[in-house]
Amino acid sequence: MARIQFSELEAEFKRVLLKKGCREDIAATSARLFAETSCDGIYSHGVNRFPRVVEYIDKGYIDLNADPVRVEGIGGFERWDGNLGMGNVNAKKAMDRAIELARGHGIGCVALANTNHWMRGGTYGWQAADAGCIGICWTNTQPNMPAWGARDRRIGNNPFIVAVPRKEGHVVCDMAMAQFSYGQMESVAMKGGRLPVPGGYDEQGNLSTDPVEIAKTWRVLPIGFWKGSSLSILLDLVATVLSGGNSTYRAGKLGADEYALSQVLIAIDATQIAGEGFLATAVNEVIADLHASLRVDEAQPVFYPGEIEARVRRENRAQGIPVDDSVWAKIRSF
Amino acid sequence: MARIQFSELEAEFKRVLLKKGCREDIAATSARLFAETSCDGIYSHGVNRFPRVVEYIDKGYIDLNADPVRVEGIGGFERWDGNLGMGNVNAKKAMDRAIELARGHGIGCVALANTNHWMRGGTYGWQAADAGCIGICWTNTQPNMPAWGARDRRIGNNPFIVAVPRKEGHVVCDMAMAQFSYGQMESVAMKGGRLPVPGGYDEQGNLSTDPVEIAKTWRVLPIGFWKGSSLSILLDLVATVLSGGNSTYRAGKLGADEYALSQVLIAIDATQIAGEGFLATAVNEVIADLHASLRVDEAQPVFYPGEIEARVRRENRAQGIPVDDSVWAKIRSF
Repeated sequence: MARIQFSELEAEFKRVLLKKGCREDIAATSARLFAETSCDGIYSHGVNRFPRVVEYIDKGYIDLNADPVRVEGIGGFERWDGNLGMGNVNAKKAMDRAIELARGHGIGCVALANTNHWMRGGTYGWQAADAGCIGICWTNTQPNMPAWGARDRRIGNNPFIVAVPRKEGHVVCDMAMAQFSYGQMESVAMKGGRLPVPGGYDEQGNLSTDPVEIAKTWRVLPIGFWKGSSLSILLDLVATVLSGGNSTYRAGKLGADEYALSQVLIAIDATQIAGEGFLATAVNEVIADLHASLRVDEAQPVFYPGEIEARVRRENRAQGIPVDDSVWAKIRSF
Repeated sequence: MARIQFSELEAEFKRVLLKKGCREDIAATSARLFAETSCDGIYSHGVNRFPRVVEYIDKGYIDLNADPVRVEGIGGFERWDGNLGMGNVNAKKAMDRAIELARGHGIGCVALANTNHWMRGGTYGWQAADAGCIGICWTNTQPNMPAWGARDRRIGNNPFIVAVPRKEGHVVCDMAMAQFSYGQMESVAMKGGRLPVPGGYDEQGNLSTDPVEIAKTWRVLPIGFWKGSSLSILLDLVATVLSGGNSTYRAGKLGADEYALSQVLIAIDATQIAGEGFLATAVNEVIADLHASLRVDEAQPVFYPGEIEARVRRENRAQGIPVDDSVWAKIRSF
């Protein structure tokens, strides 16, 4: 495990993308987003994910030089076609546009069809909040979770993000509808460990914290059991209907690899609507109250959503971003 | 347990509201919403809740004849003041306005401050879907759940609703951020039963399905553990910032009774955006795929969100709405 400086990691991502034939501006934006995601500690969707993105470029799923284009719109709503471009750049441009729409319409919404995995969804929440906006966004995915009452995977884990701007550090919730990602479960399984809370069902139909047992059924647990299953279905339907793109069902028909997804990016101009003063006071008093909670474990503070990412970001900016040696070697070999 | 016809139940709600001094139009709308909620099988927020609403009217928390008013707006966004009027009527009028805004702006959003408990949140999702719109709405609540890692209740269970229109029956997700409501847990406890999945923590800090043990700690479980806790905080912050009203923290400072809440109601004109043909095809093929799931229990179908409510509605419309005798006696005594 080495600690790589932000600028070095960013430059390396950019070098590989340029080598793959990517246009300068797209490579620069994508590399920055990959570096930021890694810097915030979301390694699974940053540096650790980068090799798979390269694989998808090589397989032709990602059209590196495609730009997302506006298809049609009405008022604060626009429908865009991602043209199978780079997922994180497409989503960033869609949120840029939603923010622009929010300036004039209070609320702006871009529905993006035919796009690729956006990596860390929280990125676009932080982006909206940096612009003084509330960000709400979600994506559909391949079928990777059984619906409630089902054994086979037909719904997506469909990450859902809500962000509120705050000068001292934005408040950002970034959550998939599965209790744990496959990546998290595999990583715990490799260490022979247990999940901190139940993550799915074993072959006897009992809730289990053992990722090895869960992997035998792939009955991963939606958050809140039937509730997360329902919300996953609705998020998928809304993204599909608004973008005119693929549903999780349709994305599943394309094969085992995940591409041509549908996303929704909403921005609301919170600063314009609420005013800086009320915005700051209202958010800060809620956070102060949260921090004053009686703790279950005295040694474990109660965090506001986004607090840990902000802390890791500061640490990784100062000390470098921890990167697994084999992952780093692989990226440098591209 | 008697079965009361929809029209009789509706008339009885209206009679009581009129007797309490309510204006004819507000009484009619509120009574219809209470009857519809009961008819859909959500008795806890329909007929069973009505006596407490009468109590809140008597206590002066609900100003029966107050109308919600538009405070300000920009494009598709408007901020309204509920003036502490009847909660279900206020929320319905706010969603009416969001739908109107969506017609011209694609997406419409009304943030409502200073309003009262909206009863069943799903009502406003069904309402948007009846108008051919996607509905997304949520409310904050009194502090009634500990944040993740906390022992004392400082966040709300903040119900969140997403609805998509469909001719054969809308798809509607209506979920609070707590795994179970207090009412559900009390009702299971009274029968000496167990919850179907863990609903909170016992005094030893273990997950429990025993509502009696959970009631000793009031550490009720957010859906998805840390995830539902985070989403609850964000939903509260967005409702507060956009409406300019009370946060869960502030609502808690008003005392033990729940009033003066903040809500967000969003409508997106899905029919105009997607067209009736694509809308129907995209949604129906997802539902057909869900229904084709391999079942965990052969006797238990996999339902789409909203399917059970639609089924109960048909049954209760035909056979009358089941009403507990003591609740019915109480309502008739008002």
